[in-house]
Amino acid sequence: MIRERVQALLRDVASGAVSADAALAALSSDPVEELAHSTVDHHRALRQGYPEVIYGAGKATEQVLDLCASIASRDGRFLVTRTTDAQRATLAARFPSARVSSVARTVRLGGLADSGGADAPRRVLVVTAGTSDLPVAEEAIETLAALGLGAARLVDVGVAGIHRLLSRTDDLMAAGVVIVVAGMDGALPSVVGGLVRVPVIAVPTSVGYGASFGGLAPLLTMLNSCSAGVTVCNIDNGFGAAMAAARSLGA
Amino acid sequence: MIRERVQALLRDVASGAVSADAALAALSSDPVEELAHSTVDHHRALRQGYPEVIYGAGKATEQVLDLCASIASRDGRFLVTRTTDAQRATLAARFPSARVSSVARTVRLGGLADSGGADAPRRVLVVTAGTSDLPVAEEAIETLAALGLGAARLVDVGVAGIHRLLSRTDDLMAAGVVIVVAGMDGALPSVVGGLVRVPVIAVPTSVGYGASFGGLAPLLTMLNSCSAGVTVCNIDNGFGAAMAAARSLGA
Amino acid sequence: MIRERVQALLRDVASGAVSADAALAALSSDPVEELAHSTVDHHRALRQGYPEVIYGAGKATEQVLDLCASIASRDGRFLVTRTTDAQRATLAARFPSARVSSVARTVRLGGLADSGGADAPRRVLVVTAGTSDLPVAEEAIETLAALGLGAARLVDVGVAGIHRLLSRTDDLMAAGVVIVVAGMDGALPSVVGGLVRVPVIAVPTSVGYGASFGGLAPLLTMLNSCSAGVTVCNIDNGFGAAMAAARSLGA
Amino acid sequence: MIRERVQALLRDVASGAVSADAALAALSSDPVEELAHSTVDHHRALRQGYPEVIYGAGKATEQVLDLCASIASRDGRFLVTRTTDAQRATLAARFPSARVSSVARTVRLGGLADSGGADAPRRVLVVTAGTSDLPVAEEAIETLAALGLGAARLVDVGVAGIHRLLSRTDDLMAAGVVIVVAGMDGALPSVVGGLVRVPVIAVPTSVGYGASFGGLAPLLTMLNSCSAGVTVCNIDNGFGAAMAAARSLGA
Amino acid sequence: MIRERVQALLRDVASGAVSADAALAALSSDPVEELAHSTVDHHRALRQGYPEVIYGAGKATEQVLDLCASIASRDGRFLVTRTTDAQRATLAARFPSARVSSVARTVRLGGLADSGGADAPRRVLVVTAGTSDLPVAEEAIETLAALGLGAARLVDVGVAGIHRLLSRTDDLMAAGVVIVVAGMDGALPSVVGGLVRVPVIAVPTSVGYGASFGGLAPLLTMLNSCSAGVTVCNIDNGFGAAMAAARSLGA
Amino acid sequence: MIRERVQALLRDVASGAVSADAALAALSSDPVEELAHSTVDHHRALRQGYPEVIYGAGKATEQVLDLCASIASRDGRFLVTRTTDAQRATLAARFPSARVSSVARTVRLGGLADSGGADAPRRVLVVTAGTSDLPVAEEAIETLAALGLGAARLVDVGVAGIHRLLSRTDDLMAAGVVIVVAGMDGALPSVVGGLVRVPVIAVPTSVGYGASFGGLAPLLTMLNSCSAGVTVCNIDNGFGAAMAAARSLGA
Amino acid sequence: MIRERVQALLRDVASGAVSADAALAALSSDPVEELAHSTVDHHRALRQGYPEVIYGAGKATEQVLDLCASIASRDGRFLVTRTTDAQRATLAARFPSARVSSVARTVRLGGLADSGGADAPRRVLVVTAGTSDLPVAEEAIETLAALGLGAARLVDVGVAGIHRLLSRTDDLMAAGVVIVVAGMDGALPSVVGGLVRVPVIAVPTSVGYGASFGGLAPLLTMLNSCSAGVTVCNIDNGFGAAMAAARSLGA
Amino acid sequence: MIRERVQALLRDVASGAVSADAALAALSSDPVEELAHSTVDHHRALRQGYPEVIYGAGKATEQVLDLCASIASRDGRFLVTRTTDAQRATLAARFPSARVSSVARTVRLGGLADSGGADAPRRVLVVTAGTSDLPVAEEAIETLAALGLGAARLVDVGVAGIHRLLSRTDDLMAAGVVIVVAGMDGALPSVVGGLVRVPVIAVPTSVGYGASFGGLAPLLTMLNSCSAGVTVCNIDNGFGAAMAAARSLGA
Repeated sequence: MIRERVQALLRDVASGAVSADAALAALSSDPVEELAHSTVDHHRALRQGYPEVIYGAGKATEQVLDLCASIASRDGRFLVTRTTDAQRATLAARFPSARVSSVARTVRLGGLADSGGADAPRRVLVVTAGTSDLPVAEEAIETLAALGLGAARLVDVGVAGIHRLLSRTDDLMAAGVVIVVAGMDGALPSVVGGLVRVPVIAVPTSVGYGASFGGLAPLLTMLNSCSAGVTVCNIDNGFGAAMAAARSLGA
Repeated sequence: MIRERVQALLRDVASGAVSADAALAALSSDPVEELAHSTVDHHRALRQGYPEVIYGAGKATEQVLDLCASIASRDGRFLVTRTTDAQRATLAARFPSARVSSVARTVRLGGLADSGGADAPRRVLVVTAGTSDLPVAEEAIETLAALGLGAARLVDVGVAGIHRLLSRTDDLMAAGVVIVVAGMDGALPSVVGGLVRVPVIAVPTSVGYGASFGGLAPLLTMLNSCSAGVTVCNIDNGFGAAMAAARSLGA
Repeated sequence: MIRERVQALLRDVASGAVSADAALAALSSDPVEELAHSTVDHHRALRQGYPEVIYGAGKATEQVLDLCASIASRDGRFLVTRTTDAQRATLAARFPSARVSSVARTVRLGGLADSGGADAPRRVLVVTAGTSDLPVAEEAIETLAALGLGAARLVDVGVAGIHRLLSRTDDLMAAGVVIVVAGMDGALPSVVGGLVRVPVIAVPTSVGYGASFGGLAPLLTMLNSCSAGVTVCNIDNGFGAAMAAARSLGA
Repeated sequence: MIRERVQALLRDVASGAVSADAALAALSSDPVEELAHSTVDHHRALRQGYPEVIYGAGKATEQVLDLCASIASRDGRFLVTRTTDAQRATLAARFPSARVSSVARTVRLGGLADSGGADAPRRVLVVTAGTSDLPVAEEAIETLAALGLGAARLVDVGVAGIHRLLSRTDDLMAAGVVIVVAGMDGALPSVVGGLVRVPVIAVPTSVGYGASFGGLAPLLTMLNSCSAGVTVCNIDNGFGAAMAAARSLGA
Repeated sequence: MIRERVQALLRDVASGAVSADAALAALSSDPVEELAHSTVDHHRALRQGYPEVIYGAGKATEQVLDLCASIASRDGRFLVTRTTDAQRATLAARFPSARVSSVARTVRLGGLADSGGADAPRRVLVVTAGTSDLPVAEEAIETLAALGLGAARLVDVGVAGIHRLLSRTDDLMAAGVVIVVAGMDGALPSVVGGLVRVPVIAVPTSVGYGASFGGLAPLLTMLNSCSAGVTVCNIDNGFGAAMAAARSLGA
Repeated sequence: MIRERVQALLRDVASGAVSADAALAALSSDPVEELAHSTVDHHRALRQGYPEVIYGAGKATEQVLDLCASIASRDGRFLVTRTTDAQRATLAARFPSARVSSVARTVRLGGLADSGGADAPRRVLVVTAGTSDLPVAEEAIETLAALGLGAARLVDVGVAGIHRLLSRTDDLMAAGVVIVVAGMDGALPSVVGGLVRVPVIAVPTSVGYGASFGGLAPLLTMLNSCSAGVTVCNIDNGFGAAMAAARSLGA
Repeated sequence: MIRERVQALLRDVASGAVSADAALAALSSDPVEELAHSTVDHHRALRQGYPEVIYGAGKATEQVLDLCASIASRDGRFLVTRTTDAQRATLAARFPSARVSSVARTVRLGGLADSGGADAPRRVLVVTAGTSDLPVAEEAIETLAALGLGAARLVDVGVAGIHRLLSRTDDLMAAGVVIVVAGMDGALPSVVGGLVRVPVIAVPTSVGYGASFGGLAPLLTMLNSCSAGVTVCNIDNGFGAAMAAARSLGA
Repeated sequence: MIRERVQALLRDVASGAVSADAALAALSSDPVEELAHSTVDHHRALRQGYPEVIYGAGKATEQVLDLCASIASRDGRFLVTRTTDAQRATLAARFPSARVSSVARTVRLGGLADSGGADAPRRVLVVTAGTSDLPVAEEAIETLAALGLGAARLVDVGVAGIHRLLSRTDDLMAAGVVIVVAGMDGALPSVVGGLVRVPVIAVPTSVGYGASFGGLAPLLTMLNSCSAGVTVCNIDNGFGAAMAAARSLGA
């Protein structure tokens, strides 16, 4: 594609339709905006289908506000993850139509009206092993909603009571992608992976007793899954799982 | 589906078309074959589209032969990974039409004639950072071929010479799924993930100097990828990456 | 058992005593209650002898309250572990007859009146290496009491003063199961394991100086115990140790 | 007991029935035999029901022979684990009636004639996730047989094909203790622990891809099991699991 | 010694000077006091020369007070380490003559009047690499003072300015034991170990940047010291280093 | 040099120009100042070109003030890193001409007026992967300024949008040293290292999701960089990177 | 530079001196040669001053030969590291003028005749803590020689005998860059870093007792060096250290 | 001491008894011998009481021979540890009076005739938990013998049979220093440390099942010992423990 643009530009220069200086400018223009503290990648929406997502943790509230304003002005939408209470309050005041989730710790402008809605063409099923895994699951669901993808929930169906999962086999079979969120032993993705043919994206969480070591235990479990083709995201990274689902669904 | 079968069976019992004992037998019959040393999951081909794949490492050659024979007799095909030299020799003798790859350490019956062929409907691109990552890449390609999926290779394009990768942007853009195999710093999937919209499946390898710690370094790199939606397989697990690609492509 | 129920049901259907639709409903009914945030496994009391235990950490107080109410309404008892101060206060107000332990951080409805009482048919002895290990020991004792099992305590008998332990050999010999709770070097279970024939369940605690690494040191010690047949629970997991003791005692 | 013996002895001394020197000798005699390289604990058979088990790895063949001879002369039986080929050959020649298992790498004198036999009063069920976990399972079974305990096998029923396990629920329900041996993700004990009430002893194995890190992955999985009361042994330690089962069964 | 006491006692019983019951009581009496929460090892002062030291962290202030009172009543002295502010305030009020160090976080009754004094027969030199290592050094010095051992300080002489250490070679040569406290790279004990013949006890501290991993880095450095015969204590464990010095000096 | 001074001194002694006692004093005088809590290395300015830098973390404000006063009195400048808010306030009041950076957490007396200025003879380029890496970058820039070295910034150019970096190739090419600061996957130094010939100093940061493990992930990435000759500093150690740059530039 | 080439090319196209198609070809031509197994980066010699270095480990001997031939044909020189015996023998036969070092495990064509020679304008000093660190030091020296840089050696001067190092202060002072190679405690770079102003590049080695953990111990030591501005390479990576030295010297 | 030598030398120069040049030479002469591959620290015998000990692992046999010859020529004795079979054979041939231990893997010239003899003034007791720990214990005993220190053995008295240890309390009480060698759980030093007042030097060994992680488990156990004042050496480092014992005994 870039090749075609260069080729066309060169022909225009050869024909005199475009001057050498103008062509140079066109080739040099960088779809990047430099704020004082960040380099916004405006090209990303074109390249990957969604503008750059803002990671709130460790950023000043004003930095987040600047970034949201910059992105919203170009794309009319944004998503911020890992927000603080202060960031959420400030963004809610500045962007009254933004959707704020305190469980998921996200703020988004645009996307699906109902984050768990059934209106998307191909469904994602987000499964959790326990109740404590919900914040990570909600981060995934809000991210999917920002991307225009509907999601269903199947909560608290860990392998210690395997019939809870097996009784929902129909829901599993109907999903286009399954995101499995689990802490502690992280065993659930292996069972799910053996039941469905579609992509299974495993997300370890930091929920658990001491030898979980902040999520290391379920992370290793999932990487060693005996169900072939299960892939793994970073600990507590519901956002990444949603983005992987979107890649798989062509969203 | 299972529910429908039970429902139908019960109606047959109610109508007398099927006796209670026969129905019980039908409900009890398990699509599993018990060998002396293994429990073959013949149901898997129905459930997941491909019969159980045999992991050769740590198994006696006779065990592997038994398993291949059992699976081939039902499904007419098989795939064995992580074979020893002895296993490959024995299987080649027993199954003359099997395809043997000493680089990938695989033996397979059935699948694509040409493992790197271009005859599959949606293409997988397997990218490696270095030459030493080839065995893992080949394991992925042979697995894909067993599943009937064609794959292209892009070898030795690590980020230390970034133009090697960027000059192949067209190939990256054309792929339906990209598998990225890298040892050492494991940085390549992050760059690839920023260039394409499709699923990027990262496979760390155990290639590297001391502080690679057997592949731990690239594994952590990939889990922490700054390109959203990159997912990760186990170290050196080309097989798993291929299975994940197949899940994504609906193969 | 499930097999027998299916068999009986099928005969009833065959004889017309039960309709096909009623049989299907019976086979389909799932002993699971879906709250907004959790899937309560009511079947567990039947399957494992005690209803699902609630893990308080990371749950909202209202979620814990919902779960307690749901379980108490079916089973007339419950146990919550790892409660916060707020959870304990709320539960104490809502369930006046519940027993609250601020040391163990547990709340329970039902079970033994006296958590360390001697009224149970087979005794569990809970041994600690130090005073700082008490909260974990108390979690075990409260859990045992919830299950109707009495327990004796033997506190602060670490191996640095081995005669403290040896002078209590009679108590050790009299126990049906010994739970050994130890931080720091975690050496105590190895000594106890060499003195008694009954199950020895080792629980590492996170008590200790820097190189304890949050309990990793005693965990590894216990896994490598030179006393054969000592088994190990997660760090600080007094609850799990009590459940293992109950499994062993057939409680 | 030791207290009663001291009391009786003192009374005999007081009555003149035993001289002070003889009493001193009796109190001093240590049920320990010092070989050049080892201190045999002959008291263990009295204290724990089975003589000291010999760990073959890292010992010279002559050392192992000495130890076997010393123990056999007192107790008429012995068990050696982790033997080398040379040790097995030498012991087989020296003790023709010993039972040698090259899979389990054990040699034993005495115990059950048929290591997997059904003649023991309470049965142990040894379950494995995969075929490659067999050597560890066999070590457990041979150890149980040495202790006079029969065991049944349930092999290759990992969670990736969960119906293989569920179809054997009756066998699980019938067991007095379940030993679950699993490598890779180590997820199987969590599922088994949710199905049965009896002790579940989990044994991680070193079978797996790179990020198993020699069995660390399934070890952590099992320690973090969401099924309450599952306890854990060291990596590949089938012997320890059998000893724990014996403690639980009162064997 | 115990043997001699038994022999003497038996002779007394034989001669009628001591009754059998009295002898039994003497043999049975255990020098242990059981508080509600602790088992005080009063025998330790006899066995090891100093009463049991109290570890304040994780204990309630009242528990610490009980223990101090129990020990002071028998031995007229005590040492508490890792105290909280509240513990120090309470102990200072209850024991007006106790010495309190807020830097070392210790409280002690008895011992040297001047913790860094030069009045002890053999001197301990406590060396630190940096100023931030002082709290650990002071814990060592206060513990030594409690044991009646004087200590000298040599502070902030890390290897980045090696002449600071070398200019104090005389002090190093004069010491009977050298305790070296260092965080960050933990390199100082290796240099000191090469300069002196006496025991060098290395204490890693948790002072440092990220890759110190809470003191793991200097801990490993010290364990791998190229100066032969350097031994190592736990991270931040100034108390343990002092006790080791006392063992070496026969204190 | 020291050799020459000794030689000259000895000749002066031989000629009688210097007395033996005076020579001894000269040889013995140590360029070290002992405060109560620190040993100031005044010789360092002579030996390494800049006086000892003060690490604020874990030091009392008065200790820091003492050290600053001691160093300023000799050298007329100082640098304090990792300051607390209280330290910065106190130092600003005491040294009104000091430059305080709350982002970098540094206070310095002397050095460049403009920390990011272009007035230094050879330029350092400080590159960050993300906005959250800024505090570490600023610590590097302030340290460089203290040393009289100008620096340019290139912020938020992580590899997920590789064109952001490539569009700034000219800046990269113009730098004398490049410091690359990155958290998460830490992939940026490998790409930069492949683009420039000059020293590339990589600094991992603790910014990231769970499996970053406090910066371990990017640290390992950078140590395993496939770009030859990239070297690595401690996690979050912007100060160390600046000092390494100064060594390379001969500053 | 690339910008200037594009600008010039565009002007030539505008003037008709170059056709659009030729310009496209020029812009598209990739300085990369694709072998069957590798993508040779011929552009690297232009970009970084030395052609791509070949890492022998894990490559087939024929692959190495192909790569050497490809690079030698363009650049007249090559360097292979981590060679096997077979690779060295084959390369020596094929390239009779190549220099082979069995200690360093390198083969190189071109560069300095005498790898430790004094003929380079700015000298590198390679220091080792022990004799066992020599292979890593020699890899660095051979790499430097390939780049045309002379190096001096200072071997076996670990900190346990600090006077061995201090007696060579003149040599340290004279070096332009110091590479310090150390296993075990890895303490040497901290001392060297305090003595010199020039770049100090630390290389940990895998030499040592158990708790070295394959070089992890000295790696962490060096990353935590209390000498500011010391930077670190991967374990055993003498090659990387030499490349870093070359970057610093502008070679 | 060095100070006094300088003072005396200067007075001699002042009086004309020594010329300035001769004094300079005396001050400059370094007690170090540079071989091609090593820098022998001949000063160590003077400084630390025993010449430099040679670590055989990773050295060529000729290098070891050179070092032995160099040291023997000055000091008439030497000690080599971690020798290979070839090194032992070569040294035995070259130094017929050397003592060779294949268990300890040591070769020594000089020292006690009988390594376990009772002829030394203060005794060291070397205790092992198991038979497999013997090689490490023997390395300690041979090192002690080289230093002229006698040692007694107490072998295979691990805590699983605690009476084996307690029955030897007299031997423990009689020792001047106790070295405790243990693998697996590493619990023995904690028990020993509680029984004796003298220095207890703990040596972890790499003996054990998988979760020993090469000796990491007992290493951590020992560092966290609840017996105050136990210090720790590197894994399998019997040599270091002996050197520490010698430091403590003033040998």
